[in-house]
Amino acid sequence: MATIEQVLPNEIEKRSMQIIGEELAEMGIELDPRNEAVIKRVIHTSADFDYATSLAFSEGAVDAGVAALKRGATIVTDTKMAWSGISKPALAKLGADAQCYMSDPDIAQAAKDNGTTRAVACMNKAARLEGDVIIAVGNAPTALIELDKLIKDGRISPALVIGVPVGFVNVVASKEIIMESGVPYIVAKGRKGGSNIAAAICNAMLYEATRREL
Amino acid sequence: MATIEQVLPNEIEKRSMQIIGEELAEMGIELDPRNEAVIKRVIHTSADFDYATSLAFSEGAVDAGVAALKRGATIVTDTKMAWSGISKPALAKLGADAQCYMSDPDIAQAAKDNGTTRAVACMNKAARLEGDVIIAVGNAPTALIELDKLIKDGRISPALVIGVPVGFVNVVASKEIIMESGVPYIVAKGRKGGSNIAAAICNAMLYEATRREL
Repeated sequence: MATIEQVLPNEIEKRSMQIIGEELAEMGIELDPRNEAVIKRVIHTSADFDYATSLAFSEGAVDAGVAALKRGATIVTDTKMAWSGISKPALAKLGADAQCYMSDPDIAQAAKDNGTTRAVACMNKAARLEGDVIIAVGNAPTALIELDKLIKDGRISPALVIGVPVGFVNVVASKEIIMESGVPYIVAKGRKGGSNIAAAICNAMLYEATRREL
Repeated sequence: MATIEQVLPNEIEKRSMQIIGEELAEMGIELDPRNEAVIKRVIHTSADFDYATSLAFSEGAVDAGVAALKRGATIVTDTKMAWSGISKPALAKLGADAQCYMSDPDIAQAAKDNGTTRAVACMNKAARLEGDVIIAVGNAPTALIELDKLIKDGRISPALVIGVPVGFVNVVASKEIIMESGVPYIVAKGRKGGSNIAAAICNAMLYEATRREL
């Protein structure tokens, strides 16, 4: 018979984070305090300790993301799933926003006209945004490859790129490309990632930004 | 310099599934043909080959899920993220539906009144549905524990339970409990799972159901 631990609903997350901290310590893994909240939230979301070592951060990436959110940045995701997972109350508290253009009619048309994925068309739409932009890619490596071109062409200058597409075709390469693009990044090296990981990284920074607001 | 493989947008998924098949063969893992589409789609969604061995299926579970979807079942998820990830065109083609009650005002009230998680309140709401119901839990172990009680009390008889909550508190135990409850199940044993996994399992069955419709 399976044993159920009695934990109050609002204590579950705290207890989970405690377990994650203990197990990381047992593994001899010490996290950079600047990246700790993001890494722990990703492990909390995936139960996958691979992320303790696969998440790569450019210097000051988390601070850059938190600062942009406090300035009311727009997060642009490449899936509705990632968008759904991002905390709307936290965004509202900061006057920040999250957008996903994947289902927009103009995106389907642009992708068809240009023979690209819809994710590529979304990045071009994101390049037309005013103000701070955080790009969160949890699915499409083509989005990161297009983003690198837009950055090189001076058409977009994201406050932060969250590059965590998942999969088997061009995923690893797309992450390597974005890590060389010269913009602040948080990347899950290798094949793993996903919409849930992208949302978890956004939420870790949103919770940090709203905490600092108090 | 990272090398980009030239693959047409609509060929990416096919190429991914081919790679997954090849790597499973290299690992000496042979999948049960009845469960293969579900397992491969979960690996496609997570790039995590652990699922090749951690996914557990009751006898005929996938067939039960596909048949229920073809009868127009309602999928009830415990997160908006899982709901977002489920293919709406495929649901529409079958006259099936997906619901997530987590943000409903009556759920927040019921959870508060009874001192439970909102996920528990959602399961009680699902028990009042007419027709075939597939429960897809990607987040809250409390949902599976409540579901087991509702099944034992004869208040719900799901066509299929997808039990893939992720995490560290009562997750493993909740999955063991649902595997003993006597209903058809697809469960990711251990700590891993998530909304993305729940959606991938639903989509694998939806694609199977719509293919058979043709």
